[in-house]
Amino acid sequence: MMKTLFFEDYAPGTSRTSTGRTITEADVVLHAGQTGDFYPHHMDAEWCKTQPFKQRIAHGTLIFAVAVGQTAGEINPEAFSYGYDRVRFIKPVFIGDTITSRCTVKEKRDDPKRPTLGVVVELVEALNQRGETVLAAEHLLLVKRKG
Amino acid sequence: MMKTLFFEDYAPGTSRTSTGRTITEADVVLHAGQTGDFYPHHMDAEWCKTQPFKQRIAHGTLIFAVAVGQTAGEINPEAFSYGYDRVRFIKPVFIGDTITSRCTVKEKRDDPKRPTLGVVVELVEALNQRGETVLAAEHLLLVKRKG
Amino acid sequence: MMKTLFFEDYAPGTSRTSTGRTITEADVVLHAGQTGDFYPHHMDAEWCKTQPFKQRIAHGTLIFAVAVGQTAGEINPEAFSYGYDRVRFIKPVFIGDTITSRCTVKEKRDDPKRPTLGVVVELVEALNQRGETVLAAEHLLLVKRKG
Amino acid sequence: MMKTLFFEDYAPGTSRTSTGRTITEADVVLHAGQTGDFYPHHMDAEWCKTQPFKQRIAHGTLIFAVAVGQTAGEINPEAFSYGYDRVRFIKPVFIGDTITSRCTVKEKRDDPKRPTLGVVVELVEALNQRGETVLAAEHLLLVKRKG
Amino acid sequence: MMKTLFFEDYAPGTSRTSTGRTITEADVVLHAGQTGDFYPHHMDAEWCKTQPFKQRIAHGTLIFAVAVGQTAGEINPEAFSYGYDRVRFIKPVFIGDTITSRCTVKEKRDDPKRPTLGVVVELVEALNQRGETVLAAEHLLLVKRKG
Amino acid sequence: MMKTLFFEDYAPGTSRTSTGRTITEADVVLHAGQTGDFYPHHMDAEWCKTQPFKQRIAHGTLIFAVAVGQTAGEINPEAFSYGYDRVRFIKPVFIGDTITSRCTVKEKRDDPKRPTLGVVVELVEALNQRGETVLAAEHLLLVKRKG
Repeated sequence: MMKTLFFEDYAPGTSRTSTGRTITEADVVLHAGQTGDFYPHHMDAEWCKTQPFKQRIAHGTLIFAVAVGQTAGEINPEAFSYGYDRVRFIKPVFIGDTITSRCTVKEKRDDPKRPTLGVVVELVEALNQRGETVLAAEHLLLVKRKG
Repeated sequence: MMKTLFFEDYAPGTSRTSTGRTITEADVVLHAGQTGDFYPHHMDAEWCKTQPFKQRIAHGTLIFAVAVGQTAGEINPEAFSYGYDRVRFIKPVFIGDTITSRCTVKEKRDDPKRPTLGVVVELVEALNQRGETVLAAEHLLLVKRKG
Repeated sequence: MMKTLFFEDYAPGTSRTSTGRTITEADVVLHAGQTGDFYPHHMDAEWCKTQPFKQRIAHGTLIFAVAVGQTAGEINPEAFSYGYDRVRFIKPVFIGDTITSRCTVKEKRDDPKRPTLGVVVELVEALNQRGETVLAAEHLLLVKRKG
Repeated sequence: MMKTLFFEDYAPGTSRTSTGRTITEADVVLHAGQTGDFYPHHMDAEWCKTQPFKQRIAHGTLIFAVAVGQTAGEINPEAFSYGYDRVRFIKPVFIGDTITSRCTVKEKRDDPKRPTLGVVVELVEALNQRGETVLAAEHLLLVKRKG
Repeated sequence: MMKTLFFEDYAPGTSRTSTGRTITEADVVLHAGQTGDFYPHHMDAEWCKTQPFKQRIAHGTLIFAVAVGQTAGEINPEAFSYGYDRVRFIKPVFIGDTITSRCTVKEKRDDPKRPTLGVVVELVEALNQRGETVLAAEHLLLVKRKG
Repeated sequence: MMKTLFFEDYAPGTSRTSTGRTITEADVVLHAGQTGDFYPHHMDAEWCKTQPFKQRIAHGTLIFAVAVGQTAGEINPEAFSYGYDRVRFIKPVFIGDTITSRCTVKEKRDDPKRPTLGVVVELVEALNQRGETVLAAEHLLLVKRKG
């Protein structure tokens, strides 16, 4: 489950896709419990009936964390996560929706401060069962150069 | 717990700070279970002893979700979350570290596509018990304008 | 989130009301797991069909703990919880019911043994989505006097 | 696990004692997640160091729910729980303390409004590993009379 | 809850049956989280619709662990668990099925290597709400002989 | 993550090894909550001090479920799990032990009743941080033959 990849080994355009995962009421309850976010948007089915979406919505941080978890592949000991840019909650995810995530090498950049490393930008996208993108984010991976 | 605020009501520089929360082994175990990310960096205390940090590290998505949850204040029915920019994992968080989060109105921008809304940028920062910033992120809030 | 209040500052009749929270099957499963109470009243949907209520009932201690959690407001460093009187399970709570809790300052009493403190009695009530009171309890808060 | 007992069958003075259960950090984290009570008294080890008890304290509702769960014995189809009186948090419970619970038939009362039922008062006590009572409560059980 | 039984005290043919427990979506989500097994058979309701069973199936290890937990009776300090033979997943368990478990003393054997002990074989069976056996396993219990 | 393998494709002697996972107190608490097994061997640190192992022991079903989860590799749509033979709890697992699991193709057998299938026996072994085998089990996989 460990596989060494250097900056030079990442090829823009390559992607991997996860299996699907249905977002359950239990996931939302556990995420509220983990974060302390008990907003009625996620927890109060009655109030949600009075709102535009008519039903509870999964926390954005839940879908983000699930998508990141789904796209975690083999461990590259020469890479580490620097952060995320442009995390966007594009569509609401409802209880019962099924999420599949895709991770695509989007681009490679030099790291101006760290000459021995490069930045690999991975586009993480979560799609629902209708193929609609519900979340997108750019993962910044710092990766060692070969030489 | 609902409080209406319009775009005009947000004042750059104002901030709120959460109470603290100790990140426990149970939090890491529950986050692995929620995301499916059982990487040894988070789960294998023996392997971690052989690595630079010598101990298990909390998932970045856990600290992000906790910080977002900690700074969730009153509910503004005129605002909704658009996403996050510049999510940065600045320092590792270890089991037993205590996180306090701060949310500061950083700037206000027009939304070129939506004239009735404005973008409020909130800087979310998580600090550990030594006052070191461990995570930062810019929350983009779309807020209705008054008139 | 800390706010100092002395015994003299509590005004009988003032109350606060929480947002709502739908009691889910996941909540019941987690509460069974936390308490070890796997009675068929809570866990066996088939057996419950043969009983008067026809469906699973949430644990009384779950509704009590949720109501107490929902009414936890600002932290008063001059008060501490002494206990509860008259905890009453007035109506069953079913999976899918939505609970809103209200906390009302009911009365103030001298504490015969502790002259520097007074007893504030808070009435905690949990209501379901039809406005029916499902649980009531009197919270006894020991609060420092001003002088 | 079902055993029919009528009001006449309860003998004051009889008691049953549970096995022990160590209250873990995971229990406190799960209870915060179930109730939404993330007060620093339970969750912030750093802040607690500055307080009289020097360490995190388990939620009162956790200890109450655990004690009730521990003393749940055989199911009596002729009894149902009416509520609790005099719930008292007598001593703090710390992470790592081990709780054993005891349930004693304390007294039997007529129920003035329900002549076919009687009230059995069970004293529920939770003791820590030093034999100190940390919680007490009186459980009110409505039980059918024989005849 | 402790009850001493020697090898000689076990009578083949005696059995005990648990109360029922409905297997919930929350149980499946928690078991995935505990084991890291997020296979689509358990987690992806959309994909399951395309498969022979048309719906998600509980993990075999979940049903096994629940059945073992359900049949855990009194603690015998003179016995310890050696393992299981012939664990068989006979029928799929779906979300919403209700499991009742039965434990029958099936046979007693000498332990050729340990003359002071005997092997008690307990047949553990989990049945669903239609009385169909969904899981069977033979529990091997090493029990001290009387003398 | 799907990879078709026929009976003929399994080669005895091939094995795969998981990354490690530290068994935490949270895992034991969650497993008790999932199974209802709150035996003092797993839950009562004080009582355990008086027993030969001096500390709490993880549930056998927890280690079994974790080992099975750890060795879950790619999904073979032509195989399905028939059950387990010779599940053996060889050594106790304590809180803080780190488990690594290995799955080895042990043997291949005809299935007398199902000529289109064969039985692949996989040996599942869980090892602790000292390399000691703590659990072994033989997984019976029914796999379609090629022709």
